[in-house]
Amino acid sequence: MKVNGTSTRPIWLDDDGWGVNIIDQTKLPHAYEIVRMENLADACHAIFDMLVRGAPLIGATAAYGMALALKKDASDAGFDQAYSELYATRPTAVNLRWALDEMRAQIFPLAEGERIGAAYKLAAQICEDDVAQNSSIGDHGLKIIQEIWEKKGKTGVVNILTHCNAGWLATVDWGTATAPIYKAHDSGIPVHVWVDETRPRNQGASLTAWELGNHGVDHTLIVDNAGGHLMQHGEVDLCIVGTDRTTASGDVCNKIGTYLKALAAHDNDVPFYVGLPSPTIDWTVDDGVKEIPIEERDATEVTEMTGRLKDGTVATVTITPESCTAGNYAFDVTPRKYITGLITERGVAKASKEGLAVLFPDKV
Amino acid sequence: MKVNGTSTRPIWLDDDGWGVNIIDQTKLPHAYEIVRMENLADACHAIFDMLVRGAPLIGATAAYGMALALKKDASDAGFDQAYSELYATRPTAVNLRWALDEMRAQIFPLAEGERIGAAYKLAAQICEDDVAQNSSIGDHGLKIIQEIWEKKGKTGVVNILTHCNAGWLATVDWGTATAPIYKAHDSGIPVHVWVDETRPRNQGASLTAWELGNHGVDHTLIVDNAGGHLMQHGEVDLCIVGTDRTTASGDVCNKIGTYLKALAAHDNDVPFYVGLPSPTIDWTVDDGVKEIPIEERDATEVTEMTGRLKDGTVATVTITPESCTAGNYAFDVTPRKYITGLITERGVAKASKEGLAVLFPDKV
Repeated sequence: MKVNGTSTRPIWLDDDGWGVNIIDQTKLPHAYEIVRMENLADACHAIFDMLVRGAPLIGATAAYGMALALKKDASDAGFDQAYSELYATRPTAVNLRWALDEMRAQIFPLAEGERIGAAYKLAAQICEDDVAQNSSIGDHGLKIIQEIWEKKGKTGVVNILTHCNAGWLATVDWGTATAPIYKAHDSGIPVHVWVDETRPRNQGASLTAWELGNHGVDHTLIVDNAGGHLMQHGEVDLCIVGTDRTTASGDVCNKIGTYLKALAAHDNDVPFYVGLPSPTIDWTVDDGVKEIPIEERDATEVTEMTGRLKDGTVATVTITPESCTAGNYAFDVTPRKYITGLITERGVAKASKEGLAVLFPDKV
Repeated sequence: MKVNGTSTRPIWLDDDGWGVNIIDQTKLPHAYEIVRMENLADACHAIFDMLVRGAPLIGATAAYGMALALKKDASDAGFDQAYSELYATRPTAVNLRWALDEMRAQIFPLAEGERIGAAYKLAAQICEDDVAQNSSIGDHGLKIIQEIWEKKGKTGVVNILTHCNAGWLATVDWGTATAPIYKAHDSGIPVHVWVDETRPRNQGASLTAWELGNHGVDHTLIVDNAGGHLMQHGEVDLCIVGTDRTTASGDVCNKIGTYLKALAAHDNDVPFYVGLPSPTIDWTVDDGVKEIPIEERDATEVTEMTGRLKDGTVATVTITPESCTAGNYAFDVTPRKYITGLITERGVAKASKEGLAVLFPDKV
């Protein structure tokens, strides 16, 4: 999608065919900085210190990280070392493991002399596959937005609420929840996005607002508390969110607060969709509320806030009383009964075992 | 309630019988500062610049402001001038108008020489009446908490979720939503409070957490997004919130986000109560969602955040991209069907016209 009028991805191979560029997302929205990765250490730092985040982008970065590592040492030992170091950066990230295993399956068996070129090629392929997948999600979601636009007699705007950042910054392009939004915008449907701030890490205020603004999509930032009120008053035509993990029965685990928005959508007959690439479906889990353990993160994400001082300096402030105890639950689970549909790369599924079976007969 | 082990109110007459002390709530939770008001200008500043906030406390401050004004000029002209200036500080605050009208009805008719003493006495009476009213809300709410504690076999703790600050800082003592919590704590029931941060003005993080901590009530600060997850997992035994305005049919207008918590409570069979002194019932309004206009406030409340830098200095940072548009809806309305009961000074009413009629036959 666009930044300063130029089509941009959060990761791309530099013109010299060696270095790999990424946007340093830890600096957003206060500064837009490109970082060039040239070796294994750079890639590990990018993942570990969250210069890149979002499951698909972490996978893509790991794949390129392997290529960069092999460029220096394409031996078996070099491969194994790179695999271990990259894997250790964020061991719970499913796509990280998946990208590294693809590398092992396809690159490790090759002769040392062939590995570097093949690794760069596979990393590029992993990126293009992600783009294609998200683009498909966008096409299927676009139809939903088009229908709403037609139902509204093609007047006004289509108001879409989203939570957290399931945008192009979290993928290689398009995003998951945002793909239908960008497709609608690019096809001339006037969309307006209500961007949930998304406490505690503020991904809505810092990332979603930034990427929508740069691509020219009309949007308004709101606090997470506001969505229910807007839905009561007809100000939201549909919700689209992403997901970190969806169960085989259609329960959706996503950033904390998603469940509250789904309840409000249900109470006000607002359609509530989830955009997801099928690899985020966990076919081994059924009841999301009972079975998915919810990560608790550091309390400082709740008690501290980072932003720009008047002079432009970036600073962190503590917003709570001294010695205040905070709890920080990272995700919640939205039960399937509150979800209108799951927008996947294969089409829109009902949020149920049966609904998913229609699109994924090979998986269930 | 207690601050540093000492029983404290947010407003009290100084020992010299002249000055009136208040806690400067704009400084909380980063500094605890007492401000002495000595004249009309001090009182107007305190209300206008929100050193005091919360409907009952604004009323009490206006009453004492009138006494301070009369101390300097007890003439008819002096009274009228003070009335106008105090009224202009926050013209939409119902309790402000009410307190000033009480002063006009009871003090203005007196001879000039009697006005000062009578005004101080009436201001003190308005404060004591507020304390008594909130104490009654506390007693009625305490019974609800006691029942839950008994149902739990008197083991563990009673987990209570609250939103915003309807605490003693917003009243003259006890608070409205917090009165049952303080009564339960003081009577030895182990309570634990989930304190919603309450974006955008963070009254939970800055005021509720501060007052509960000072009184020694166990609590955990959470983001507004977290309540639904906690309720899904049985971590909330009941919710108690305050209200800015409740309709004759029991719809509750309160700080934005209250509605989302009520939906989650309903979805998880968690009782959802509202603590309110009966003057906040607007007997002229029926359907809260349709009839109550929702104030939109300055966007900087969403885009900026104030806290302490590492060196203790208080600073404000901007957390959004430059030129980000934000919407700031101050309140929402929770439909009566999601409310378990209204805890008033006369007892607990069902949230309905009929329920309120039982307790307030004189009003309906």
